[in-house]
Amino acid sequence: MTEIINLEPFFSPQSVALIGVSSRTGPGTFNVLEQILNSGYRGKIYPVNPRGGSILGVPAYRSVKDISHSVDLAIISTPRSAVPEVVGQCVEKGITAVIVITQGFSDADDEAGQRMHNEIVEAVRGTATRVVGPNTLGVINNFINFKSAFLEFTTSTVPVGFICQSGIFLAAAKDFTGGIGIGVDIGNTSDVGFIECMEYMAQNPLIKVINLHIEGLQNGRRFMEAARRITPLKPILALKTGSSEEGSRAASSHSGSLAGEDAVFSAAFNQSGIIRVAGASQLAELNRTLWTYGKMAGKRIGVITISGGAGIMAVDACSKYGLQTASYAPETIAVLEEVFPDWMKAGNPADIWPAGMARGYHKIVALALNSVLADSGVDAVLCITPAYLDPAEDPLNIVDTVNETVAKHPDKPTAMWFFGPHKQKYAEKFNEAELVVAYGSPESAMYCLSELYKYHNMIKNKAYETTTLPPTGSVNLKLSTLSAAPVALNEKALDIIESCGIPAVNRRLASSEDEAVKLAGEIGYPVVMKISSPDITHKSDAGGVRLGISSEAELMQAYREMMEIIPQKVPGARIKGVLLQKSVSEGTEVILGGKRDPQFGPVLVFGMGGIYAEIMRDVAFRVAPVTKREAVEMIKETKAYKIISGARGKKTGNIEALAQCIVKLGELLGNQPEITEVDINPLLVKPEGCIALDARMVID
Amino acid sequence: MTEIINLEPFFSPQSVALIGVSSRTGPGTFNVLEQILNSGYRGKIYPVNPRGGSILGVPAYRSVKDISHSVDLAIISTPRSAVPEVVGQCVEKGITAVIVITQGFSDADDEAGQRMHNEIVEAVRGTATRVVGPNTLGVINNFINFKSAFLEFTTSTVPVGFICQSGIFLAAAKDFTGGIGIGVDIGNTSDVGFIECMEYMAQNPLIKVINLHIEGLQNGRRFMEAARRITPLKPILALKTGSSEEGSRAASSHSGSLAGEDAVFSAAFNQSGIIRVAGASQLAELNRTLWTYGKMAGKRIGVITISGGAGIMAVDACSKYGLQTASYAPETIAVLEEVFPDWMKAGNPADIWPAGMARGYHKIVALALNSVLADSGVDAVLCITPAYLDPAEDPLNIVDTVNETVAKHPDKPTAMWFFGPHKQKYAEKFNEAELVVAYGSPESAMYCLSELYKYHNMIKNKAYETTTLPPTGSVNLKLSTLSAAPVALNEKALDIIESCGIPAVNRRLASSEDEAVKLAGEIGYPVVMKISSPDITHKSDAGGVRLGISSEAELMQAYREMMEIIPQKVPGARIKGVLLQKSVSEGTEVILGGKRDPQFGPVLVFGMGGIYAEIMRDVAFRVAPVTKREAVEMIKETKAYKIISGARGKKTGNIEALAQCIVKLGELLGNQPEITEVDINPLLVKPEGCIALDARMVID
Repeated sequence: MTEIINLEPFFSPQSVALIGVSSRTGPGTFNVLEQILNSGYRGKIYPVNPRGGSILGVPAYRSVKDISHSVDLAIISTPRSAVPEVVGQCVEKGITAVIVITQGFSDADDEAGQRMHNEIVEAVRGTATRVVGPNTLGVINNFINFKSAFLEFTTSTVPVGFICQSGIFLAAAKDFTGGIGIGVDIGNTSDVGFIECMEYMAQNPLIKVINLHIEGLQNGRRFMEAARRITPLKPILALKTGSSEEGSRAASSHSGSLAGEDAVFSAAFNQSGIIRVAGASQLAELNRTLWTYGKMAGKRIGVITISGGAGIMAVDACSKYGLQTASYAPETIAVLEEVFPDWMKAGNPADIWPAGMARGYHKIVALALNSVLADSGVDAVLCITPAYLDPAEDPLNIVDTVNETVAKHPDKPTAMWFFGPHKQKYAEKFNEAELVVAYGSPESAMYCLSELYKYHNMIKNKAYETTTLPPTGSVNLKLSTLSAAPVALNEKALDIIESCGIPAVNRRLASSEDEAVKLAGEIGYPVVMKISSPDITHKSDAGGVRLGISSEAELMQAYREMMEIIPQKVPGARIKGVLLQKSVSEGTEVILGGKRDPQFGPVLVFGMGGIYAEIMRDVAFRVAPVTKREAVEMIKETKAYKIISGARGKKTGNIEALAQCIVKLGELLGNQPEITEVDINPLLVKPEGCIALDARMVID
Repeated sequence: MTEIINLEPFFSPQSVALIGVSSRTGPGTFNVLEQILNSGYRGKIYPVNPRGGSILGVPAYRSVKDISHSVDLAIISTPRSAVPEVVGQCVEKGITAVIVITQGFSDADDEAGQRMHNEIVEAVRGTATRVVGPNTLGVINNFINFKSAFLEFTTSTVPVGFICQSGIFLAAAKDFTGGIGIGVDIGNTSDVGFIECMEYMAQNPLIKVINLHIEGLQNGRRFMEAARRITPLKPILALKTGSSEEGSRAASSHSGSLAGEDAVFSAAFNQSGIIRVAGASQLAELNRTLWTYGKMAGKRIGVITISGGAGIMAVDACSKYGLQTASYAPETIAVLEEVFPDWMKAGNPADIWPAGMARGYHKIVALALNSVLADSGVDAVLCITPAYLDPAEDPLNIVDTVNETVAKHPDKPTAMWFFGPHKQKYAEKFNEAELVVAYGSPESAMYCLSELYKYHNMIKNKAYETTTLPPTGSVNLKLSTLSAAPVALNEKALDIIESCGIPAVNRRLASSEDEAVKLAGEIGYPVVMKISSPDITHKSDAGGVRLGISSEAELMQAYREMMEIIPQKVPGARIKGVLLQKSVSEGTEVILGGKRDPQFGPVLVFGMGGIYAEIMRDVAFRVAPVTKREAVEMIKETKAYKIISGARGKKTGNIEALAQCIVKLGELLGNQPEITEVDINPLLVKPEGCIALDARMVID
């Protein structure tokens, strides 16, 4: 359990010192004091400026030490060279919350920036003082009209807690999250980071959805643990930027964050119940979706539309986001066809325009919505209606009709999409009642419903509850005793794999031709012969692999050829002999591996063998260790699943056994931090189980 | 060349008859006359209503025949049963343009609907009268304030011509295309369709970009030819709905359109220079992009940003859409670092906030924009700036600064992205000058720049100019004489393939064991033996394939086994003997095939062999025939390209020879309409060329 720190002084300060605030005010001066006064904050404010006097009528102190009152929060915007000393003064004064707005620390390209970053860290170490920033716009709490930013921006108050690594996400919250409740820009994260802020948002009853903007993480595993605790209480949405290789380089230089491999982030989010969004523009509607609708039990969607063409768009979107077009029950069809013109059949989507024109639009909307929502084969509805006229004058204004009908079906989400010049006004009217969400397009409606369903399904199945590391040493290989420097293991790797419970091919080391003949006889032909040498990693390339040796004569010939060719190809290689393995054919070749991610630690990689993994990029990642269920999900994420489960009349492979291998390798990686890389390649998946044919491992 | 019909009476009528217009007016009555009067149309209007009298002060005629004046356009909204007769009256009256708004024809689920559809078609056949609809909102021409729709909607006038199959796209043009110049809902397309309307938009000088909403096409090839003529003059954007399997079913029932396989549509658009958009929301910004910027010479993007975090988003988007982050020249870097703080290096993205705060934001924006646009390594720029305050009061309002700087670099697009509450006002200010486009997000900016680059690159390379069908009979196989009903060919298929210029494996039919021995000796071991029987299509499954036969003894044994096993597996199968082929190994197995698409005719399919094509869905489509360049593009679209061009140290395959096979098969399909399906599987791609090992064909 993470120690929970008290962030109240940051988000709800009773008194604020503004250290380094300028006496210049007005447009273009970006004066924090002016912004705080304008925003309507009701606490005490103490400007600090070396020249004293008063700023905008508020008396200024020459130093924070001169303030005789108690101060909850200090906001520092002095030149960067003064910051470490001022932080020290805040510590002396007993201020427990400090925001450093000033730039040029770990975000700077010079050494002085990093040195002063360390000085700030040292100044608060072991004290009760915590720091947000440097290089931050600080915090915003719309519930008490407080923000520490020097920019003027306003945004509507919504039950969203936003934690970001760049001030732009607070300043542009209107565009991104659709408003804000409480927000914080953690900037360079010299001290307070994602985990503490997430815990704070989780405990704050005004916050219903948590949003994260992540460029990089400092402790991926602690972050995952925190997310797993919080996600059953409140959904967490994450926007990860720096996802491209180039963006990742830009991220590293932006706030000193370490940007990790994008697929590992996706895996980690998935394993912690965090909903990843592809772009900032998806946050606003998804937030409103999550706080408006109580739940969504399945993925069968009913579409009620004023336009056949729009209905088609809705069905396309439904399919794109993995939802299903519901099949209406005969009773539902009957209710609709009762009012439809004679020449028109009813189905899903239901085009209500002709019926609406003939019998009154309000009546038909209410009837269609009510019968479709009552259909037990429907889990949610998208209703498409126009917004041509101002709602005050519009005969097609069905806001009240929809709200009244929907209120009778609180367990099923009804999504709305309007088109036409007045859609914004309609959306605002619906937003007031908070019974339905008005979406910008059928695509975004289906996307949000899909994420809503997945979130509630995850909570129901407790899919965020995953395994934790078993006690270290449960597989004690004493690998750390092997070497001080990184070492690549070949044959030994297969031994280690086997000892942790993954079946490996029957293999024997023969140090002479005679011994090879004897051992091959014991193993049984056909056999595979591989050179054994600590100096040869890529055996095939060195001519050190012979497959399908079917007789003693062939074996002897192969042995002699290999002993002749290897010294030519790899001069000076120490040859320990040859490794003999039973020839194993049939089955599907997969690759199972692992590596250390700088942010998340041990990570498992699974994919098809051969050229599939490389060319097709058909691989799945998980932060290790994993549960059996996660392992199965991992297999299902790849196309390998289809092949193993029997495409093209091939014998099916044993998914259960494969999942078990993934779990075992995950445990090994979790327990043995010395293993920095491992590849089981190929791992053969057969109907009766799995068998590792070769492995490589790097120990550090 | 398509015959160009005169659509002026539809889009710019001097006089309009409104047949079937109701005497009920006011909100909720959807009265066409009222809408036309309200919109400010200046032509003559003749309402037609059986009761006569006057409607909204305009005298009404009892029948269209009673109108003594000449009428350019008739708009029919009578009940459907009256429509065919009224259309006939319009023909008699000599009205050349008729819009049928009424629903319930080929869009209906009853037989009467289809019958009356045919009656309309018959009524105008051979006359000068053309029909738009039925089931349509008709036309809109914002340049003369005319629209035939019964719905009240207004939209800004932009140089976009919009042709759609559902009225919603006109009514919601503000949301979709960002406004409209001239638009038409072709509805059920009983007569006037995409091709004529595209030709009209191409000739209309007020239209700069053409937009299409397509559910299905009636003549895909003529459509492609028209698009190829128009695309060098004006860009064409297409939104194809009904792209999912379910959406496609919904599309078929919506407007009687035939929805084709989605990938074939993508291929056809690509081959005709049409830009396909994934969603309706992409149209507006892409339209503005295409009419604002003159050209874009390359894909190297410079990013100037007020926020490091936003810069990362921009770089992510740049990478996502296939653009490149430009490397600035040393002179550009020097200019930037001259004004940047000492602790900050300059690069791309260039974070101008600290310099802007220290030295004046306007000055720094102008300096950065000017130096980056002047950099010869930069093809376009994205500039990110805030929009917190009303532009009238905002010290960060750089609209004029940007416009002045950008005007000096007319050959390079500058894209803008603002964030903050006043972004809409800033966008409007920029839109007035039409020098830059203001985007909703860095993602949409990069997406649009990417499409802009691709469009101009295509025009420059004349990539829309593709091959046309060679004269029929250039490969005359007289396939049509084979049979009246569909026939599946096996061995004969390989002969046909070979005769059209695709190398096939050396193969001989042996009708006895002795002959098999003799022929195998001639071919040379190892050989492959396959059963030859008109009754066996899937030879492997029947035990009718033996690979790698390396000696006469093996051959004889295999022959006897096959002759024993086949009659057991396929009782009664007529056995003609065995086919002997040279064993060919090494090389990459691909599948090359073709089929008849109901909308586009012959279509080529190419992909990796084995399980790749099926499981990985790694296939490319093209409407046949194709040029060599298109064939190479087709190969490059698949992962097969990487493998053939030498992944994993494999010998490379001959891309040139493979492309030649694709061209040849395309010609065969184009010339022989009897071939409805063909599969060359596998086609082996080797360094020295390609060789077809097996083929199947269906003739109809």
